[in-house]
Amino acid sequence: MVTLNCDMGESYGNWRFGDDAGIMPHVDCANIACGFHASDPWTMLKTVRLAKSLGKAIGAHPGLPDREGFGRREMKLQPEELTAAFLYQIGALSGLLRAEGLELAHVKPHGIIYGMAARDMDSARAIAAAVKPFGVPIFGMAGTCHQTAAAELEVPFLGEFFPDLTYAPDGSLIIPRQQSAIDLEAAEERMSRALTAGELVATDGTIRKVDFQTVCIHSDPPNARDVAATMRRVIDVHS
Amino acid sequence: MVTLNCDMGESYGNWRFGDDAGIMPHVDCANIACGFHASDPWTMLKTVRLAKSLGKAIGAHPGLPDREGFGRREMKLQPEELTAAFLYQIGALSGLLRAEGLELAHVKPHGIIYGMAARDMDSARAIAAAVKPFGVPIFGMAGTCHQTAAAELEVPFLGEFFPDLTYAPDGSLIIPRQQSAIDLEAAEERMSRALTAGELVATDGTIRKVDFQTVCIHSDPPNARDVAATMRRVIDVHS
Amino acid sequence: MVTLNCDMGESYGNWRFGDDAGIMPHVDCANIACGFHASDPWTMLKTVRLAKSLGKAIGAHPGLPDREGFGRREMKLQPEELTAAFLYQIGALSGLLRAEGLELAHVKPHGIIYGMAARDMDSARAIAAAVKPFGVPIFGMAGTCHQTAAAELEVPFLGEFFPDLTYAPDGSLIIPRQQSAIDLEAAEERMSRALTAGELVATDGTIRKVDFQTVCIHSDPPNARDVAATMRRVIDVHS
Amino acid sequence: MVTLNCDMGESYGNWRFGDDAGIMPHVDCANIACGFHASDPWTMLKTVRLAKSLGKAIGAHPGLPDREGFGRREMKLQPEELTAAFLYQIGALSGLLRAEGLELAHVKPHGIIYGMAARDMDSARAIAAAVKPFGVPIFGMAGTCHQTAAAELEVPFLGEFFPDLTYAPDGSLIIPRQQSAIDLEAAEERMSRALTAGELVATDGTIRKVDFQTVCIHSDPPNARDVAATMRRVIDVHS
Repeated sequence: MVTLNCDMGESYGNWRFGDDAGIMPHVDCANIACGFHASDPWTMLKTVRLAKSLGKAIGAHPGLPDREGFGRREMKLQPEELTAAFLYQIGALSGLLRAEGLELAHVKPHGIIYGMAARDMDSARAIAAAVKPFGVPIFGMAGTCHQTAAAELEVPFLGEFFPDLTYAPDGSLIIPRQQSAIDLEAAEERMSRALTAGELVATDGTIRKVDFQTVCIHSDPPNARDVAATMRRVIDVHS
Repeated sequence: MVTLNCDMGESYGNWRFGDDAGIMPHVDCANIACGFHASDPWTMLKTVRLAKSLGKAIGAHPGLPDREGFGRREMKLQPEELTAAFLYQIGALSGLLRAEGLELAHVKPHGIIYGMAARDMDSARAIAAAVKPFGVPIFGMAGTCHQTAAAELEVPFLGEFFPDLTYAPDGSLIIPRQQSAIDLEAAEERMSRALTAGELVATDGTIRKVDFQTVCIHSDPPNARDVAATMRRVIDVHS
Repeated sequence: MVTLNCDMGESYGNWRFGDDAGIMPHVDCANIACGFHASDPWTMLKTVRLAKSLGKAIGAHPGLPDREGFGRREMKLQPEELTAAFLYQIGALSGLLRAEGLELAHVKPHGIIYGMAARDMDSARAIAAAVKPFGVPIFGMAGTCHQTAAAELEVPFLGEFFPDLTYAPDGSLIIPRQQSAIDLEAAEERMSRALTAGELVATDGTIRKVDFQTVCIHSDPPNARDVAATMRRVIDVHS
Repeated sequence: MVTLNCDMGESYGNWRFGDDAGIMPHVDCANIACGFHASDPWTMLKTVRLAKSLGKAIGAHPGLPDREGFGRREMKLQPEELTAAFLYQIGALSGLLRAEGLELAHVKPHGIIYGMAARDMDSARAIAAAVKPFGVPIFGMAGTCHQTAAAELEVPFLGEFFPDLTYAPDGSLIIPRQQSAIDLEAAEERMSRALTAGELVATDGTIRKVDFQTVCIHSDPPNARDVAATMRRVIDVHS
């Protein structure tokens, strides 16, 4: 059973980001930003309440301590610093969930550290070590260091597929600085192919196998809620 | 049974603050800063481990989101923002404790918000609302809004006495910007009087009643570890 | 000769704020945020270049060190801290202007400190002291502490009128947390009346005199560029 | 004529760092931190005044936007972001200098970006582009990308020697996370050798040529003021 997840709560103070209200009804899992790359305590609490009102599973979406760079600029932290930063963020969201009588469901790293966990065992282990005490699964890229480290530390791992992004020939994601509108037909086609054939087409035309249990969409394209509705429909048809 | 507590883990990144290692052996409870007015995740984790190694009770020491001002500059947050900021910080420390197999023991607000909670019901209620889900007591100033709000929300409350600070005639604390060495004899005398007679002498000579179950000392005076050892001895003698 | 000014460059990292591109053609003066309440160095530089490309006068728009609160939450800084914070921000913008071969034209405080300068001499003097070395005028509310302090320190002062906000009976501004669309007809009416009769109508219907040499509009209402175009037209007609 | 310089003003808010008062009398040039890796506006202003009272040349000491990591963790900024960040910081210090009737004398990058500028042309050019508008020299490591880029952009460049650090065999600096006391005799020996023979001994015993016009010491070793006095003496003897 494939689920649909989305990174949410990425507003910050007075700044808005993403169409959380329009997307939330369509997803199964809300990954809520934890105040380092985006969000703040009050934004997090409002996002938790929105997800709760629709009965969604809530996960932590921790990132690097770089708000100005939205957690998308590579930074070299010591593994122990990275573990502590993730324990802190996951704990912070858990505190807000506790106030709402809810439990943490999963953890999904954000931005550049998501990619670093895929290709670097030190980062991947540091993250797995931070998730382990919470007893929830990590969302990440299957077949990478991220999954290997999770297996080593016996942390459950769910592979992700991204129908609203493109993949480089090496299987890594290409994340645009500013999202433009997603071509719904192309995204639907990518989603169907991944669900039925377990494969994706990289930017150079190469066909790659993709192993996933959950599908991630983003909240910031102008037509994000249409992407969400479309993916919901495609997943429901094929499940 | 009166306990001895101290605010700790108030270093930040490369900057050192306070003689945590010298004080920790003498206290019963470590109030660990939570990353807003001071500390960072890795400093918090190291401080948790220090306290754990000596079997101390660990509480959260949340503050206002003003690192440059060390949480000592008054800021007007909406009550809902304040509650969220405290849930976030208490949760963050709880996440680090979970990784060490420990449980949160109490919450003590830091700096100016400690004083605001004493004199303003909105702040006091916002804080009590954030502590309640964690099921632990608040440390604060007895006989103030802080205690009233805690009682309203049915959060246990422990009054504090500060032998290393002076009290204004209205019973509020006078917090120096930079701590100088504490006069040990005078502090011992204040501590003994508070323990035996339940009273303190304010800056104008007025004698005030003081109701407390725990004693707070600070980590930053140059002779902080001697203050800690002295208070430990006085408390043990009178308990 | 009345000028039209607008607070700009209030995006931050990945977060967008305000329709700078749509408004810039219509104004005379761009007040550029300086990285404390909003903006970051790269956003500032891009905004400087946009203003430069259209030949606009550029001023600094410094605020309190509270990004999460967008400089709209009251904070108590020592006067010397406030002066230093403003020297820093004005200097920072001046550095970016220097790289573009431009000179600073004015300073306009942002948000809550704008209001604090109007009613509190300490804040007003601290700000005037920071502007004085740059030899440019301050924009502020005429007839308040802000103007008095500027006069004391011999810093030129230009009074502002805000056609897109409402005024409380005491003459202070009412700043909504989130801007909704401005009623263009009502704003035009307020602008004309201020220009021709030198008066405004407060929320309780009271008519107040208003002394101004420059008109401020905001970049965040959904119809901000229409407000800008309208005000431009009204000012041109009456000048 | 070789000068002696020191990185200063690296306290932050309530946290102290370095013995600025003890070192200042011995140096020729104070490199003042600019609020990104360390310092804050009020600390900067106080440091400017200290340097001014002793008639020292004042330079900017800008760093990466990573206060928690003290500007010592590698971060990947776009060149344009880096230029803007440096223009901002140099401008900010220049604003404080203007208030004191002083002029900027030089720029010295801090921490990891100092090393990045030595080995990466993009970083080096981005920095030189930010210094150029101020018409002052850069301090850096001679014979590296840093110097090449400065030459390309026609920015004057002064090479540095570090008698209180050790050099790796490739000529790069080894910066300890926490400074311990400097062996004065060894530092004096290194300083004399560099001044008289123009060479240094790397950690593997290799002898390397070192080209420098200025000598940098650090403010945080416990015996920093003795290091300063010693280096002052050695430089004066050999000049």
